[in-house]
Amino acid sequence: MNVSNRLLTVPASPIRKLVPFATKAKKQGVNIYHLNIGDPDIKSPEVMINAFKSWNKNPIAYSGSQGEENLISSLTWYYHRLGYKFIKQENIQVTLGGSEAILITFIAICDPGDEILVFEPTYPNYLSLAATANVKLLPVATTMKTGFHLPAQGEIEKRINRKTKGILICNPNNPTGTVYTKREIDTVVKIAKKHNLFLIVDEVYREFCYQGKEHISILSYMKYNPDKIILLDSLSKRYSLCGLRLGCLVTLNNHLADGILRIAQGRLSAGTVDQYIAAKLTQVPKKYFIDNIKEYQKRRDMVFNQLLKVEDINVYKPEGAFYMIVGLPVKNSEDFCRWLLTDFHLNHETVMLAPGAGFYISKNSGKNEIRIAYVINKEKLKTALKILVEGLKTYKLKVKS
Amino acid sequence: MNVSNRLLTVPASPIRKLVPFATKAKKQGVNIYHLNIGDPDIKSPEVMINAFKSWNKNPIAYSGSQGEENLISSLTWYYHRLGYKFIKQENIQVTLGGSEAILITFIAICDPGDEILVFEPTYPNYLSLAATANVKLLPVATTMKTGFHLPAQGEIEKRINRKTKGILICNPNNPTGTVYTKREIDTVVKIAKKHNLFLIVDEVYREFCYQGKEHISILSYMKYNPDKIILLDSLSKRYSLCGLRLGCLVTLNNHLADGILRIAQGRLSAGTVDQYIAAKLTQVPKKYFIDNIKEYQKRRDMVFNQLLKVEDINVYKPEGAFYMIVGLPVKNSEDFCRWLLTDFHLNHETVMLAPGAGFYISKNSGKNEIRIAYVINKEKLKTALKILVEGLKTYKLKVKS
Repeated sequence: MNVSNRLLTVPASPIRKLVPFATKAKKQGVNIYHLNIGDPDIKSPEVMINAFKSWNKNPIAYSGSQGEENLISSLTWYYHRLGYKFIKQENIQVTLGGSEAILITFIAICDPGDEILVFEPTYPNYLSLAATANVKLLPVATTMKTGFHLPAQGEIEKRINRKTKGILICNPNNPTGTVYTKREIDTVVKIAKKHNLFLIVDEVYREFCYQGKEHISILSYMKYNPDKIILLDSLSKRYSLCGLRLGCLVTLNNHLADGILRIAQGRLSAGTVDQYIAAKLTQVPKKYFIDNIKEYQKRRDMVFNQLLKVEDINVYKPEGAFYMIVGLPVKNSEDFCRWLLTDFHLNHETVMLAPGAGFYISKNSGKNEIRIAYVINKEKLKTALKILVEGLKTYKLKVKS
Repeated sequence: MNVSNRLLTVPASPIRKLVPFATKAKKQGVNIYHLNIGDPDIKSPEVMINAFKSWNKNPIAYSGSQGEENLISSLTWYYHRLGYKFIKQENIQVTLGGSEAILITFIAICDPGDEILVFEPTYPNYLSLAATANVKLLPVATTMKTGFHLPAQGEIEKRINRKTKGILICNPNNPTGTVYTKREIDTVVKIAKKHNLFLIVDEVYREFCYQGKEHISILSYMKYNPDKIILLDSLSKRYSLCGLRLGCLVTLNNHLADGILRIAQGRLSAGTVDQYIAAKLTQVPKKYFIDNIKEYQKRRDMVFNQLLKVEDINVYKPEGAFYMIVGLPVKNSEDFCRWLLTDFHLNHETVMLAPGAGFYISKNSGKNEIRIAYVINKEKLKTALKILVEGLKTYKLKVKS
């Protein structure tokens, strides 16, 4: 069929590849608890949902390629309130979701064949976006034993070679929920500086830190390496706006920002109405975050405590985001996750999970793992976990027989 | 600064690069008529604008990566009504504007260094998206003398080499307004088949054909070369929804569609609310198009007739879309377009135009040309053209002095 070689290297999303099986199960009347995707059930702020009713412009015109002025101004306000008053409007590029911020960054700093260092398990869309952009991701392993915290500086540095153009880190981490310490962030900042690499930090879960765990934002380091630090951000999780497709990229490097704007001009603009809605973020009360973080922390505790009790399951306590990697007593978690959709149900209900292997670049890693997203309420979460545990028991018997 | 080499090759949009000068002029109280960008003033259908008021889902969740089911179903309805009943839901990939459909196509069929043949003058975002995707565009010249219609088969074929993966054609054409004849479409279909190339046809202006000129859609050829024909489409112009960022890609090649869906999974989804709004397209009355096409035809006639009278200006009568290339008696139209914004006004008003060179790949082509988008009402258009003509007179005197 002569499609491109790079197309063949783009992996299916581990989060979405089982969707056809879920669709089929739903058609057969099975209710599915979605723990596979970080699509939160927490309400978006009322002020945003209500704003749709006040949309009165017709026609719906393009916005500026850098972003709609009202949203850029709201984002600037947001970063200033966090304490980063040096951020100016020209430092912000609005993107079509955090996804586009990642893709544009890859293209802007790497030529085909160049490499970016990531920590695995990692966010699977980094893999597909990197394949799309002909960028190679170099994995540095982290393990559950240490809560997926970073290895020593030397371990990281030994992967760097002349093709390496940057280090990409997600903090708080998807899929592990790890919140990096100041010391860890210091280390990656130091490594990037020493080897003249870009340091790309994805902070879309910035607010989601539990038990008072402090989030060390890369913004507080930006002025020390203004040309090489890039912040990736998204409104999807912070305000439960996944379907609005809005994120942004922040850089103090004007040369880079100019180039990124040229790429952005090539796709004209982000959604105009979406930006109008999102610009209301200045009116979201602080209580919104406090309540949501509390709710997520309760869910995290519940998932951790429930799974800790189960024999043969490996868990740790994630510190942030709303994900958790879980080690299961199965040989191939993808088979198990598919089986849960095709062959198993408990009272006509089952659970959808993301198989772990898709979160790894290294072959044969994560095959016994799954990622859980605790984005459904505690009642449902309890049932979903019960299904998982019962499913595991049945699956083990089936495999043995 | 170590940005990538490819970033340096992404051109600034000729449509948007002068925006800073326009912004400055506006701040100085100058009113600007925008003929630079195809952002129509024609109203979006009421049924769509009203639909925002009925949005009642909270939170705003991701949609499926292929597209929201309601929009895919509406798009299928649309193509069926055009007479292409063979198109099934699985043949359609919803994209973030026509722009994303272009980018994904480039990536899906080309590896870095591969080539795609285009006819110039061409749509500038093909250039920036191709640079972003490391794809080389091979230009085949068309000229105003023949209304920018295609050259003979041999002229086209002689540019094809072993790196060539496809032919991309925009019909009706942006920036020329050319609507290709059946014979021309037959020819490109034949060439693609003969040389085993993909044939990518961008039909975002499908409905915009004037004086009963028939549009020959590539959809009517699709079944004859199902693996290699790709349709690119957009809702931006058809329903004046530029700011919704919705388009689609249609292919009967399942292998290609699967790969494209994997790319789409990497960016999660298109806008959920935007898709909800756009899905109302099944309720747009036929009269909406009839009225709009009539209006655009009147504008086309007016621009053509006005400019025909002006000495030293080269024009032709475009057959569709809402653009026109105009040859001006200037050495460098970009200088002239900038000057109109920085140094000229008539009663505190001026006009913004797109310089022609950005629509060409070949060096030194189109330097005396501009593109006009007749997307403002006739009254304003008349004034804008008057400013252009007066501006030209003043500019000529200035250049001579």
